[in-house]
Order: sequence, then C-alpha cells, then structure tokens
Amino acid sequence: MAQENLSVVLHSKGDLRLENRPIPEPEPNEVLLQMHSVGICGSDVHYWQNGRIGDFVLKKPMILGHEASGRVVKVGAAVKHLKVGDRVAVEPGVPRDMDEFFKNGRYNLSPTIFFCATPPDDGNLCRYYTHSANFCYKLPDNVTFEEGALIEPLSVGIHACRRAGVTLGSSMLICGAGPIGLVCLVVAKAMGASQVVITDLSSERLAMAKELGADFQVTVTRGDAPQQLAQNVADMLDAQPHITIECTGVESSIQTAIYATRSGGVVVLVGLGSEMATVPLINAAVREVDIRGVFRYCNTWPMAIAMLASGKVNVKPLVTHRFPLEQAVQAFETTRQGLGIKVMLKCDQTDQKP
Amino acid sequence: MAQENLSVVLHSKGDLRLENRPIPEPEPNEVLLQMHSVGICGSDVHYWQNGRIGDFVLKKPMILGHEASGRVVKVGAAVKHLKVGDRVAVEPGVPRDMDEFFKNGRYNLSPTIFFCATPPDDGNLCRYYTHSANFCYKLPDNVTFEEGALIEPLSVGIHACRRAGVTLGSSMLICGAGPIGLVCLVVAKAMGASQVVITDLSSERLAMAKELGADFQVTVTRGDAPQQLAQNVADMLDAQPHITIECTGVESSIQTAIYATRSGGVVVLVGLGSEMATVPLINAAVREVDIRGVFRYCNTWPMAIAMLASGKVNVKPLVTHRFPLEQAVQAFETTRQGLGIKVMLKCDQTDQKP
Amino acid sequence: MAQENLSVVLHSKGDLRLENRPIPEPEPNEVLLQMHSVGICGSDVHYWQNGRIGDFVLKKPMILGHEASGRVVKVGAAVKHLKVGDRVAVEPGVPRDMDEFFKNGRYNLSPTIFFCATPPDDGNLCRYYTHSANFCYKLPDNVTFEEGALIEPLSVGIHACRRAGVTLGSSMLICGAGPIGLVCLVVAKAMGASQVVITDLSSERLAMAKELGADFQVTVTRGDAPQQLAQNVADMLDAQPHITIECTGVESSIQTAIYATRSGGVVVLVGLGSEMATVPLINAAVREVDIRGVFRYCNTWPMAIAMLASGKVNVKPLVTHRFPLEQAVQAFETTRQGLGIKVMLKCDQTDQKP
Amino acid sequence: MAQENLSVVLHSKGDLRLENRPIPEPEPNEVLLQMHSVGICGSDVHYWQNGRIGDFVLKKPMILGHEASGRVVKVGAAVKHLKVGDRVAVEPGVPRDMDEFFKNGRYNLSPTIFFCATPPDDGNLCRYYTHSANFCYKLPDNVTFEEGALIEPLSVGIHACRRAGVTLGSSMLICGAGPIGLVCLVVAKAMGASQVVITDLSSERLAMAKELGADFQVTVTRGDAPQQLAQNVADMLDAQPHITIECTGVESSIQTAIYATRSGGVVVLVGLGSEMATVPLINAAVREVDIRGVFRYCNTWPMAIAMLASGKVNVKPLVTHRFPLEQAVQAFETTRQGLGIKVMLKCDQTDQKP
Repeated sequence: MAQENLSVVLHSKGDLRLENRPIPEPEPNEVLLQMHSVGICGSDVHYWQNGRIGDFVLKKPMILGHEASGRVVKVGAAVKHLKVGDRVAVEPGVPRDMDEFFKNGRYNLSPTIFFCATPPDDGNLCRYYTHSANFCYKLPDNVTFEEGALIEPLSVGIHACRRAGVTLGSSMLICGAGPIGLVCLVVAKAMGASQVVITDLSSERLAMAKELGADFQVTVTRGDAPQQLAQNVADMLDAQPHITIECTGVESSIQTAIYATRSGGVVVLVGLGSEMATVPLINAAVREVDIRGVFRYCNTWPMAIAMLASGKVNVKPLVTHRFPLEQAVQAFETTRQGLGIKVMLKCDQTDQKP
Repeated sequence: MAQENLSVVLHSKGDLRLENRPIPEPEPNEVLLQMHSVGICGSDVHYWQNGRIGDFVLKKPMILGHEASGRVVKVGAAVKHLKVGDRVAVEPGVPRDMDEFFKNGRYNLSPTIFFCATPPDDGNLCRYYTHSANFCYKLPDNVTFEEGALIEPLSVGIHACRRAGVTLGSSMLICGAGPIGLVCLVVAKAMGASQVVITDLSSERLAMAKELGADFQVTVTRGDAPQQLAQNVADMLDAQPHITIECTGVESSIQTAIYATRSGGVVVLVGLGSEMATVPLINAAVREVDIRGVFRYCNTWPMAIAMLASGKVNVKPLVTHRFPLEQAVQAFETTRQGLGIKVMLKCDQTDQKP
Repeated sequence: MAQENLSVVLHSKGDLRLENRPIPEPEPNEVLLQMHSVGICGSDVHYWQNGRIGDFVLKKPMILGHEASGRVVKVGAAVKHLKVGDRVAVEPGVPRDMDEFFKNGRYNLSPTIFFCATPPDDGNLCRYYTHSANFCYKLPDNVTFEEGALIEPLSVGIHACRRAGVTLGSSMLICGAGPIGLVCLVVAKAMGASQVVITDLSSERLAMAKELGADFQVTVTRGDAPQQLAQNVADMLDAQPHITIECTGVESSIQTAIYATRSGGVVVLVGLGSEMATVPLINAAVREVDIRGVFRYCNTWPMAIAMLASGKVNVKPLVTHRFPLEQAVQAFETTRQGLGIKVMLKCDQTDQKP
Repeated sequence: MAQENLSVVLHSKGDLRLENRPIPEPEPNEVLLQMHSVGICGSDVHYWQNGRIGDFVLKKPMILGHEASGRVVKVGAAVKHLKVGDRVAVEPGVPRDMDEFFKNGRYNLSPTIFFCATPPDDGNLCRYYTHSANFCYKLPDNVTFEEGALIEPLSVGIHACRRAGVTLGSSMLICGAGPIGLVCLVVAKAMGASQVVITDLSSERLAMAKELGADFQVTVTRGDAPQQLAQNVADMLDAQPHITIECTGVESSIQTAIYATRSGGVVVLVGLGSEMATVPLINAAVREVDIRGVFRYCNTWPMAIAMLASGKVNVKPLVTHRFPLEQAVQAFETTRQGLGIKVMLKCDQTDQKP
C-alpha cells in the first residue's frame, strides 16, 4: 500500500514497536525523503533501555533514528537546491531559532534546536520522512547511501578532531575503540595525525582500530592506574601526545586523559559518564592542558561528503550488520549486545544495497 | 658598605631571615640591577609557611620575591638594548632551553625554565640582583617603579584574560576578589568587557572591586549552593556570562564557574586548590564550555607597559602597604594576615618613593 | 493621516524624492517599526550621486537609509522576543538563505542577503518600516535612539577591529578620520589599543579624532611618499604599529598601510577605492603582514549594545547635525558637502530628541 | 686528508667555486656535522646568477646550501639532546636575538636571524659544518638523509598550508607546480584537503603533480585572462576553492588567485615577483578573502619528521638528480636549466645512498 510508512517507535522505556504512520507532507522549506539506510546509535539503544538521557526524557511515543540517508521524493515549494530523485544525507539537527548561537555559527548549541530522536522530536527510522531541505545534503554518485548515513557518526569525529585542533603531525591518544573512538581515529588520520594510540577493554575492538590505522593499541583493564597508563602512552610515543580524545566517559579514563596529555595540549571529552567527575583539574590547569567538550556537531556534512567523495577516508568497514527495517527489534538487540561496530537498517524495500 | 646586599632568605619552612649576600656579577647576557620595589605574592608567603608548593620543595636557602623593578647598574658585555641607569621591570621567568615550548611562543610551559623564588631559583627581594637582560623591560618615564613591580601580578590577569578570549562586550564572572581577581577585573575592563560580576567572602575586598570597576559584587558564604549562585549571576546579567575566571581554587567555586558560564563560553582556572576536584564535567562538556588553566604567563610585559604608559589601567590603588626592605619580616606578616591588597617592599635606601 | 508613511526615495541617479508609501504589514517573523532616528551614510549619498556602487546598480526606485532605530508598533505572529513599545536598533542585513556562510557564522558574506538600501532592497528612511524581528535588537533604557542608529557605523568599526585582532596593548595606525576612521578609533580604544596614530587630509577631522582618544594625529598631503609616512608613524610610536586600518581606499594610503605595519601584523582594508590597486605586495608577504578586508559586519549588535549600555564608548559626539525627516534633501546635501561627521534624520514627528 | 672540508663557495655573481675550508670547531651549544645530503634550492641558483635576492646582497664569499642533513661527529659542551653518530636534519634559520618575534613563536620574522646561505651567513654545502644543536633534529631510523634534507622545502609547504588553514575537506587551487607548488600539494593532501587543482605552464610538471595526488591539472598559457582561469577552476570544483596557494609570483597569477578564491577564504602568497603588484584588492576585500604571505617557516621540523616517519607523505619522488659534492657546478647547472624537480648533492664520500 502506497501510504504505508513503517516506523520504529519507542513508546516508553523498553517498549519498542514497529507501526505504521501516515506519510507526511513537506512544508515549503522541506523535502519528503524515502529513507534508505539508517544506522543505530548507542543513544537510540539508551533511550530504548532507559527512557531518557540526562535531561532529555521520553514523555510520548517517538520515532527513533538519526544516522540517515534517503532519496528525495517530494520537494517543498520554496526549495531551490534539491529535486526529486536526489540522494541525500540527513543532518539531524535543525535550529529553530535564529539566536546568538546560530548567528555565530555554533547552531549545535542552540537550546531550541530540533534534533531527530531526541525527545520530543521524531527521528527518521521509517519509510518516509520530511526534513528541512537546508539540512539535507546531496550525495555525489560515488558516495553510497550507507556512507551517507555514516556521516552522522563521522561528524562526531570531525567535530571532536576540529575542536581538538588535530593537524599535521599531531600525536594522539584516543580512549575507547567503540564506534565513536573509531571515527575519531579515521578523521584524525585524515587530518594529518602522525601517531595515534588507542585504548579499549576489548582486544576485538582494538583489532578493528589497528585495521583502521591506529599506530598503537593498548588493552586496558578495569583498575589500571591512570598515571601508569599515561606513562605507558608517553613511553610508546617517546613523548606525551599533543591531544587526547576521551570517548568512554569513564572517570578513570578521563583522569588518564589529563595525565597523559602534553603541556599546552588538549583533552576533548566525547564520552559521557556520570554527572560529577573527580579529576586532577590542577594537573591540567598548571600545564595549560585545555579541556573541551563536544555537543553533537555543526558544519560537518559538506566536509564529510568532500572526504568521502575524494576517497580520503574509508568508513565502509564500520558497517558490520545489516537488517531490513521490518527486523528493527532484532537490529536493536544486536546493538544492545555490543556485537560488531555499526548496525545498519535498510528502509527501502526495493533497494537493500549499501 | 658598597658590597652590602641585604636579602630576604627563606632557609626552611617558617625560617625567614634577612642576611647579607655578595653582590653578583652579571654574565654577558645579564644586567645587574639595584632593586627598587618588590611586591610580596601569596606564593612567597606560602613557601614561608609551608616550605613547598605542590612539587616545588624548598631544599636549600632561597631568596624570595618575584614582583620586581629596579635600576640597571651594570651591563653584561653582550647586552645591546639596556644601559646603566635604565629603569626596568623584571619578568621572573627565563627559559633555559630552546625547547618546543619556547620555539612555539609558550615558554612559560618549558619544564626547565628559571623562575625567581621557585625552588631552587633565587628571587630578587634584595638590594642587588642579576637577571637576563632579555627579560628586563625598560620602563617609560611615566610608569613608576611600583607600577613596574605590579606588572607581574598584572601579567597573571593579562594571561588569564587572553586565554579566556575576553573581548569587546564580554560579560564575565570573576570568582574571588583577592589581588589576582582584582587584576583580572582591571585587565578585563581594559580589554572591553562590558559587565563583570565579582564574588568574594569579604565585603571589604568587594568594595575595592567596585572601586576598580566591577559592575556587580556578590558576597558569598561558605555552603552556598553552586547552582543557585550560578542562577543569581545569570539573573544579574540577564544572561549567563560568556566567561568565568576562577581565582579561588575552591571546589565549590569551580563548580559554580562551570554552571554559571554560557554555552560555548570559557572557564579559566587561575586559583589552585586540592589536587583532585569533583566537578560537573559533563555539564561543561555538553554545553561546550571550555576549561582552560593558566601557568604564570608569557609575552605580557610589553603589553602591560603599553597599558600602563597609556593610562588605560590604574593599578596604583592596589598597593596598600609599604615597608623598607629592612622590615621584610613585618611586611610578610602583614601579607600573611591578609591585610590590604598588595604589600610593597622598598629595596632602595635612597629612594623609597612609589 | 494615520496611514501616512513619508519615505525618502531615490528614483534614479540624482533624483531623490520625499513621497508617501503605504504602511506595510509585518510577516509572521517581522515587526513593524515606527522609525525614530536614521543616520545618513556615505553610501546613501553615493547612490544618490552615482546611481550605483560597484556591481550594485539602482534599477527601480528604492527607499534609502540603513543606520536606524525605532519603536515596535506591531508584532508578527511568530515573534517571541519583542513586544509593542520596545525600542530597537535595526541590523540592516538579513540573510535570506541558510547557506554555508550563514551556517558558519559569516552571514555577511551570503550572496543573497537582504540589505537595507542596497539595490533592489528598500531601506528604512521613512516613518514606518517592517523588518525581521531576529535582526531587531532591544535597546536598554540608558541607550538613546541615536546611539541605537549609530550601532550601524559602530559595527563597521567593531568588525574591522575584530578582523584586525585588536587587543590589549595593540599599537595602531588608522588611515582616515572620517566617520568610519573615527568609529574604528573609538572601538580600538575600547578593545585595549594602547596607542593610535590617525591620519587625514583635514585638520578639522583630526581635531575630532584627538577628542575621541587618538594619541597622535598626522596631517597628510596628497603626494606624500608612502614609505616616508610609514617611517614617520614608526618614529612617533618608537616602533611600527601592530595593526593598520585603512579607511580611505586611496592607493597611496594602502601602500602606506603596508609599509607601516610591523612584521607579523595586520592591515585591514575598510575604505574602497578603484578596482585594481598597485601595492607592495611582496613587502607585506615576506614580512607576513596579513591583508584582510571587511564586508559590512556580522554578530556585532549585541556587543555594541553591551558597550553602549556600560558606557565604555561615547559615540554621541559623532552626531553633528539633525534634521526632521521632512528636510531629508537638505540633510543629504549637508552630508554630500562633507560638513560635520554624522547627520541624523528624525523620523518621529512626536519625538525629535536624541 | 682528515682536515679536508670541500665547500661550494659563491665568490660573486656568477663565480661559483669548489674550495677547501678548515673544519670548524663547535661552540658549546653547537654540533659539528659531517654533511650527507644537501638539496639545491632555486634561491641558491638565484644568488649564483644575480649575486642578490632583494635586499640580501652578496658582499663577500659565501658557502651555499640550506636544504641539508648530516651526521653528528662532535658535540659542544652544553649540548644535551644529541650525541656523536646521530643522524640529523638541519633547520637553517637560527634566531640570534630573543626579541618579540622569537618570544611569540614566530622566530622566522626576527630581523637578526642567522640563515644558511643568505648573505652574509654561510650555508652547509660542504663536508663539515657546525650548527646550533637546538636547530638540528634527530632523524628516526626509517627516515633517510635525503628525506631529512627535503624537510626544508617541505617546511615551506607546511608553513604555507598552516598559514592557509588547510584542514579536512578544504578545496584548493595551487598556482605553480614547481618544487614549492608540489610540496604544498603533498602537505595539503596530508592535512585533509579533498580536492586540489594545480596550474602550470609545463605539462611535464603537471604530470608529476598528478602523480603526487593533484585532482585536477590546468595547463596555463601566458596571456590567459585571470578571471576566465578563475571561472574554469570554479567549474572544475563545482564551487570556488576555499584556499589558493600562489607559488609563481607572477602578477597575473596573483590576480587569478584572488578572483578564484571563495568568499571568506584565503590566498597565501609563496612565490615572489616584482616589488609592486597590481591586483584586484577590492575584490578580495569585499569578499573577505584574506591575503597572507609566508617568510620561510618556523616550528616545522618536528611535524615534518613525524609525517615522514609515519609514512603519511612520500617526498622521495621529488629527487630526480644526484651528484657527488665534487660535481657541484654541474649540479647547479642542472637546476638552473630547470631539469627535473630536485637536485641533491651527496657530501659524504663514503655514503652516497639516499
């Protein structure tokens, strides 16, 4: 049936359902997309399992999904740069207000921003979805839909590396080799990082990191002393790294990040842990090691597309599992169990290719 | 006696003595200075009372003092830009090695830097002192010796405000109205800050802050809730401040600093407290509030002299007490008791003027 | 008559008329303003005299004026932050497209931006005018309407000084003491510039510059050798200035700007002259003197209001002439003759106060 | 004979001689190097042919050469980080004075800097040479002597790309595919540039550029209209490039660089032409296209070594000719004729390998 719009809806903590929704009509500045590939993010699973992330609490049913690409099937009256048939990647955050953050080019910090699959805003894990055309980016022919969907996690890596000031010859520590640690690694290498040490509890994840270009892998164990780990990293690199990107959110790992980083360097916090953290703040302060967080990203899609189109990065190995949209629950379960790296849902029944 | 070189020497924790030392000879790149005015810093008192600051431990007698100005009385053979009679301000940190930090313009981070009155390096609270001519800066006629000595604490404020990115229209919170909080205030205003809220336990200090240009003063009480204080600051300014400079080192104040600062803003940590601090790191991270420390300063003397010469800042009110060098112990006791703002020692018996 | 909307309309080169237009209705995101004070800019006069500026050519009648403030008299349905009665300053540039420039915080570079009194977009030299509420900024009680109107030229100075990197202790050369040179001077001083040399052909303008804080005034004469002028400036300051802001657009003055600026410094080009200029580009290049232009401004209104509200700058002396809107032609003639600094048109018949 | 120190000495314009000089003794902060590989630079040839470059005039015999690597054979008393046998790359510029430029990390701008083979300072095209140990950088085992010597031209590319702000996804135009254009290309790609257009008169050079990673090659012809060339570049990239690096110094090419660059972008001037240039300065200014020059480089050796050691760049193909030191004149003649890319002189009789 043409009006079918199968959607993955989280009704409440633990209650994930597949159900049909009406196909929406695009507003004048929007496009209607037939979704093709949507990755499952740790945050999607977190909402499913916990019903909330920090202050964002699920209060009514919400469609999940925000790592997405699709094809334009209808175009709003005011849209100029897209046409029916265009293949696009979707930037899930769309600022609603022209506030100081937006005007200054940091729209990710706008408190009223719309964001797919952050309550109460619906995501795009469905067959048909409307989105602001200004935040849909046309994919070149040599970039696949799945690469388009992976621009979202890649953007986290781009924003983190950009905030870190990664440049030619940067030596780095990345704490955590999950999907985000891995995209940070890939982006850092593309920006010229010369040596990257990556840590994780799992040797399997570290093996993937090695494949993606990590120079050193460190298997950590719960209880490792942060200062000792920091020293080990310095020994491997013959110097402390200029930059550390912390992707675990674990307190001891944040401590390691601070101790490990060279004076005058930068620690970027990507992983999120508990609200309060006990850290050697003075050690950072008196060595002028800056501590910078990231909130999502802004202005990353064009450069990510440029990167992918030019073949500078290869993110295809990150996709380890694929499921048709109809098997979304099984796909979520796979992610929940931490199997593989990235699980991709295929929303287009007529084209399940990458 | 011409060879007399009365010096303020810390022999060990609590053991402060006035004693005569030989007058040193300048090396080829040095000048011999007849010291004129030397301010007492909290760190001088801290060494006196505790024998150490962090990893810097007094192991042998050390001359104190590092906020200094004097007159050139002898010039090393290789010195080109100074001559006998020049009045100079002394930058107490002199890098010893041409390492990566020095080459990159951040010589304050060089681990082998010489620094007056940081063990084991002697300071300049004495009659005669030799120093690298490259780190002595000629004072214009309209800048007094005491202003010259105050460039050192002023430099802390300059470096903090520069690291904070203070610019035209910045709204700010400064935590702590001691000497460092006050110089941060003065510098911030000179850099264009439009509104500054300053906090302290002492209403006397806040009164001085008001005199020096603070727009709002907040008397805090031990036990005040950081989030409530942060809210009060936002209410005063009709918005969160862009920048917070934390000058107390107290954990709850660091927490306030983070909660108070606007998304996308900066917290600069100037005050030093305990090694580990428990802070709402996630709150900072997800709002991209950067946390930056300062270690002393670099490249501040020329701009400080330009500021003072142009009359853009008035630091003279900061000097609340003066003692001749002979009464150094009494002067230190005054600082220890927290009386006034800045105690100045007058080292030149023939000229005790400001 | 209530519906009267007297407007200053340029019909074609040289053909300036006062005529009645209908009072417009605000769109949902707009406000209707009763205009209060509108300054006359050199560009308004240029369009009147020449019918064009560069590629911007008058092809149909256009209302002039873009330095404006007024009172909100009607509010569009979607406007949240303004209400009837609010006094506002008007930012004349409103981006139409959410393009890469807007997303990156440099919306002034957006090629499709709406801009008051740049053909074909109407300005606001009239009684009633509608504008995007997002680009109307509420004035605090202690900021007058005329100060609000002066934010526009002040913004040119803010943007130029910000692009120049003016900071504490900057020494500067400003070429030209017309309205733009003067606002650059005022802003530079507020950002901490220690010493400013300003040049002009007119000693009357230089006298005003002195009053507004210039440290040195240099009367130039057509035919002065750029390298000699540069040397004179260095002699005055005892060193080359860190920054030069060129506000004349005259080729020889651009040459002077380059020769005068210290190695590693910045020349900002604000004045616009002929399309091609012959300049000592190598002299700039091998001394790493950066050459940066400015196109209008972005993100300046909030900081300008903060500045004015805090009393950090006094722009009131810039207004030297006032005319009621009905005498607009006489006001334009005054500006054309170069009399005084800033001519202000008073659009509100019931309130002609500053 | 052990004391033999065969050196390539330029006596005066056109008078290049091979002669023996005494082997120098290292000062306390110096090392004595047995030179291994020294590349010939266009500037070496320029001094030979013209006796001067700009204000630098040959007034007495000078040893040529400044792209160099060698082996430590003697160590000054104060040297800590090098020992006999270390293989090092030589940074040819050594600041003499601790002036404001050095203290700020831009020592390349220090007017009194020592620089190999810039009159009157001797270069290192000889068997034995002493140099400040602080500006000799130890080569890892997997970096060859020739790669070490190539760090000098590579540094020009690093400094240019860093000044340009090349980052992930940058699209670029490089004007000129000579040795400097090619190192800019290699570095830009390593910093994440996604698409690079390169221009040259010579299709042979463009072929090498393609091999080194250029995405588009444009053969230009004297007389091509700059605006047309700029349009062609935009057509190739589907947008104007963010950054242009101009390596020819030719006036029309500088014009092309300005017209071609996207609003808000950067033109870096590396090539040096005539003293005065006629350029569309307004076009750059009103589009906020910054124009930045480069003077040599600073702080590039460590990152260049990190790059080479990690295999991120391959500069080996740049060496197209090798000559033993004894055949220096023939080698210079080869460079003068513009044959190949980089001519390398082999100074160690016992090891002529790369």
